[in-house]
Amino acid sequence: MYEGAGSPFFYVLFILHPSWLFLRIQSETHFPMENKKVKRSEDYSEWYNNLVKNADLAEHSAVRGCMVIKPYGYAIWEKMQQELDRRFKETGHSNAYFPLLIPKSFLSKEAKHVEGFAKECAVVTHYRLKNSEDGSEVVVDPEARLEEELIIRPTSETIIWNTYKNWIQSYRDLPILLNQWANVMRWEMRTRLFLRTAEFLWQEGHTAHATAEEAVAETKQMLEVYADFAEKVMAVPVIRGVKSENERFAGAIDTYCIEGMMQDGKALQMGTSHFLGQNFAKAFDVKFTSKEGKLEYVWATSWGVSTRLMGALIMAHSDDEGLVLPPKLAPIQVVIVPIYKNEEQLNALTEKAGEIKKALEGKGISVKYDNRDTHKPGWKFAEYELKGVPVRIAMGPRDLENGTVEVARRDTKEKEVLELADLANKVEHLLVAIQENIYQKALDFRDESITRADSFEEFQKILDGRAGFVSAHWDGTSETEEKIKELTKATIRCIPLDAKEEAGKCILTGNPSSRRVLFARAY
Amino acid sequence: MYEGAGSPFFYVLFILHPSWLFLRIQSETHFPMENKKVKRSEDYSEWYNNLVKNADLAEHSAVRGCMVIKPYGYAIWEKMQQELDRRFKETGHSNAYFPLLIPKSFLSKEAKHVEGFAKECAVVTHYRLKNSEDGSEVVVDPEARLEEELIIRPTSETIIWNTYKNWIQSYRDLPILLNQWANVMRWEMRTRLFLRTAEFLWQEGHTAHATAEEAVAETKQMLEVYADFAEKVMAVPVIRGVKSENERFAGAIDTYCIEGMMQDGKALQMGTSHFLGQNFAKAFDVKFTSKEGKLEYVWATSWGVSTRLMGALIMAHSDDEGLVLPPKLAPIQVVIVPIYKNEEQLNALTEKAGEIKKALEGKGISVKYDNRDTHKPGWKFAEYELKGVPVRIAMGPRDLENGTVEVARRDTKEKEVLELADLANKVEHLLVAIQENIYQKALDFRDESITRADSFEEFQKILDGRAGFVSAHWDGTSETEEKIKELTKATIRCIPLDAKEEAGKCILTGNPSSRRVLFARAY
Repeated sequence: MYEGAGSPFFYVLFILHPSWLFLRIQSETHFPMENKKVKRSEDYSEWYNNLVKNADLAEHSAVRGCMVIKPYGYAIWEKMQQELDRRFKETGHSNAYFPLLIPKSFLSKEAKHVEGFAKECAVVTHYRLKNSEDGSEVVVDPEARLEEELIIRPTSETIIWNTYKNWIQSYRDLPILLNQWANVMRWEMRTRLFLRTAEFLWQEGHTAHATAEEAVAETKQMLEVYADFAEKVMAVPVIRGVKSENERFAGAIDTYCIEGMMQDGKALQMGTSHFLGQNFAKAFDVKFTSKEGKLEYVWATSWGVSTRLMGALIMAHSDDEGLVLPPKLAPIQVVIVPIYKNEEQLNALTEKAGEIKKALEGKGISVKYDNRDTHKPGWKFAEYELKGVPVRIAMGPRDLENGTVEVARRDTKEKEVLELADLANKVEHLLVAIQENIYQKALDFRDESITRADSFEEFQKILDGRAGFVSAHWDGTSETEEKIKELTKATIRCIPLDAKEEAGKCILTGNPSSRRVLFARAY
Repeated sequence: MYEGAGSPFFYVLFILHPSWLFLRIQSETHFPMENKKVKRSEDYSEWYNNLVKNADLAEHSAVRGCMVIKPYGYAIWEKMQQELDRRFKETGHSNAYFPLLIPKSFLSKEAKHVEGFAKECAVVTHYRLKNSEDGSEVVVDPEARLEEELIIRPTSETIIWNTYKNWIQSYRDLPILLNQWANVMRWEMRTRLFLRTAEFLWQEGHTAHATAEEAVAETKQMLEVYADFAEKVMAVPVIRGVKSENERFAGAIDTYCIEGMMQDGKALQMGTSHFLGQNFAKAFDVKFTSKEGKLEYVWATSWGVSTRLMGALIMAHSDDEGLVLPPKLAPIQVVIVPIYKNEEQLNALTEKAGEIKKALEGKGISVKYDNRDTHKPGWKFAEYELKGVPVRIAMGPRDLENGTVEVARRDTKEKEVLELADLANKVEHLLVAIQENIYQKALDFRDESITRADSFEEFQKILDGRAGFVSAHWDGTSETEEKIKELTKATIRCIPLDAKEEAGKCILTGNPSSRRVLFARAY
C-alpha cells in the first residue's frame, strides 16, 4: 500500500493504510533528489546524466574525462565481472596480467591497428619529478626523459602478441586462451559517464590458435558468451551480427558484435569479438611448428566488454523514478523497511525482519534491513526506487498482528499483501519473475524498434521519428555507408548473423543488394 | 611409491612398484627445467628468480621494470584477492574505483607525502600521436601537450581525498569505508619479479572518520585483517608492529605493519595500515559538521597489500624442488596421475579417476586429472612438485585391482597407499593437515629466527651469520637508526605491538631505551 514518493497516488494511498497518521507526519520529508528529476520524454540525455549521479553510480573526476565509479555503481560492475569471469573460465580461459604501458614503436607494427587506434592516447615521456627551484611545487625533471615514449594501453594486442612470441614454438603450445581484467585509456574529447570516458575498465580476451577454423570458432563462441550474458543476466536482448568494414576493429579480419536498443531509439554496441587472422602474428613474428612440421603464423582472436555495459544496463530498463535493475545484477535484491511509531513497535518489527532476512539469505538472496531513524519510510521508498532495488518489503504493526507483509516490485510498481508463511519461496519466485519481465519488456520494445525501409525517404522518416533499428538494403560499399552516415548520422550497426538472403536495391544508390543490414543512430 | 624426479630415491623406489618396468622406459624423459635447478643454499636469489620463471608465475616484459603475471601466478593472486575481498566486506568496506591519473599539482599538497613519494613516477605529458613525416613510424604530436602534466598513481590518497571533499559535509556522511583494487606505478630502478616492479597490482583502502579514535581503531582492525590473512591463508606467521619514523609512510602519523621472515633470514614487509590523522583532510580541505555543530577536519586511514605477497608466499615455503603452496591458495589442490601401459588400462583408470575427481569436487576441492599422453608420469610428478600442488594421487592397474591409490603430499614428500573407501574425506583432512603443517614449519623457523643482541658486536655477528630478526635496544632517534643501517644494512622492521617494557641501553649509542625493537635486513 505504500507508494513511492513523487507518485500521484502517494497521498491517496496512504490514507487507506493503518499507519496513515504516521506517514502524514512524515510528508514534509524531502525526497531524494526530487528537484533534479527530469523525465525521459523531456530530455533523455539529461535524465541519464542525473540518474547516474543521483543513484550514486559514478561521477566526473578532477582529471578530465576520467570517472570515479562510486560504491553502488562498482557493486553492479562487480556482479557483472563475476558472471562474465565464470563464463570465461567455463569455456576454458584463464586470467593473466600484462603491462599497462606499451612502447610507442609497438603501435606502428600493425599498420591498420595504428591507423585506427593509436592516435588519441596518453603518452608517458618522463619518469621523475623534482622540486621546483623556489620549492613551491613539483616539476617534471627534464633529465628524466625516456628514450622511447610509452603509451598507456588503449587495448593490449601489441604487448600481448609481443609476449606470445616467446611462449609459442610448437602446436603443443596452442591454443593459448587468456583474458585480462584491466583499465585502458583512450583520449576522448567528448565524454559521458560509463558510455565514453578516457579511462575505463574492461576485460580483453586474447587467444592464439593453430588454425583459422579454430580461431573463428573461438570468436563466435565468445560472441555467444556475451550475448547470453547480456540477455540472461543484464536482461538486455541483443542483435548478434558482424560489422561492415568501416566499423571493424583496426587490425581485424572480422568484427562480430552484439547490439542493444536503448529506450530513446539509439543503438549501443555492447561487446565485440574479433577474428584477427594472422595480422598480429605477422606484425610480431609469432610462428609455430605445426603437427606436420611446417612453420606457420599463429591465428588470433580478441574480445572485450567494458564498463560501457553499465550505460547499457541503465538506459535499457530504467524509468522516470530511477534505476530498474534485473535481480541478477542488483547489489541489494530485497530491502525491508519497518513502519513504526515508537521504539516498542520497532523492536517487534526488527525481530520479525531478522527472521525474514535470514530465510531470504538462506536462499542466496541479498537483503538490506533499513531501520535508520534518520529517514522516514516515504523517503526510503523513493530512495530504493531510485537505486532500483527489485523487491521492497514494508512491515507495520498491523502487519505483525496479521502475519503479513507488503511486497512491492520495482519493475511494475505492483504491490501485494503476502502472508509470512513460505515468504522466502514466494520472494525467490518473484525475483525470477522480475528478471523475466524486465527482459520480456526490453525484448518487446526492441522488436517493435526494428522497422524496414525500402526507400531513402522512408529511411530518413523512421530515423527522425521513433528511430530504432532500420532494416534496409545497402550496396556493400564503404562510400555508400559514409554517405548515409553524413546525411542521417546513422551507421550500419551490423549485418545480423540470421539475416536472410533477399534480393533488393540499396536505399541510397539503388545498386543491387543481397540482404538487409541494420542501421541506427548509436551511442 | 613414486618419487619426484631429481630425488636420489627415484631410481631405487620405482623398482619396488608394480609398474617399474613402465617407469624405466620413461627414465630418459627430460624433467622440467632440470638443468636450471639452483639450490636455496647455493644462491637464494637465483633460486627465487628461477622458481618464479620455471613455475610459470611471472616474467619480465618488454617494458623495463614491468612484469607479465602468467596464468598460474595470476590464479594464485586471484585466490588471495577473493580471500582478502571477503574479509574487507565482512568488516563493512565496499569497493570503488578512482582515476589512474593524478594531476601533478595534487602531489605537492601534502608536504611530507610529496617528499617521500612523488618523485619517481611515470609522467604523462601528451595525449596524441601522429604519423611521422616519412610515414614510417608514429611520433608524439607536439601540439597535443597537456596544460598540466598527469602522474600515473603511485598511491591514491591525493585523488581520493580530493573526491571525498565533495562527499563529506556532515557527520552523517561518515565513516566512508572504501577499498580499490588497482594497478599502481613507482619508477623503480632495480626491479625483481613480484618483490619490486615498476607497475604492480594491489588494493588500497581509504577510510574517512569523524574521530581520531575511530580512525585508529580502523587502522588496527585492518592490520589484524592482514595478519589473519597472512597466517590463516598464506600460512606465513607475521610480526605485528609499528614503524619507526624513518620507515613511516609519507604523510602518516603512524604506520602499522606485518613483517614476515623469509628462508634466507631476510624480512619482508607484507602489508601496512596507516593512521593518517588529519593530514590529507587538511591538504584537501575536507571538513565536516560534527554532531555538536562544529566544523572539523576529517580523520583518515589507508591500508594496502600488493602482488608483493606473491614474493612472500614463494620465499616463505618453497624448497629446492619447487613451489610449496598452502592448500588454501593452490589453484590445483589435488592432481591425479594415471600410470598405464596401454589404452585399456588408461580407460579403466580414467573411469576410476573420474569418480574420485567428482567426490573431491563435491567437497569444494579443485582437482586436475592429467591423462596427457605427451608426458610420462615421472615428468608429471616433477612438474606438479615444481608447481606446488599440495596432493598428488597416482594410480596404476595394480591399484585398481587392490582398490587403492598412492597419495603423496608436497610439503613433507611423504607417500602412503590409501584405500579408495572414504578417500574424499581423507584427502580433505590431509589438505587441512598440510595447511597447518606449512604454517607450523614457518612459525618454528620464524621463532628460531629471532635473536636477542645486547651489544653492537653481537648484533653484527648475528646479521652476518644466520641473520633473521635481531631484537635489540635502540635509543629512539632517526640518527641512530640511519647509522645502524649504514653500518649493517639492517633497518628497524618494527616496534612489535606486544613488545614488553624493558629498560636497556641502545646497542649503538648506549643511550637509555625502554623496549626492544626488531631489526633485520629486508626485501
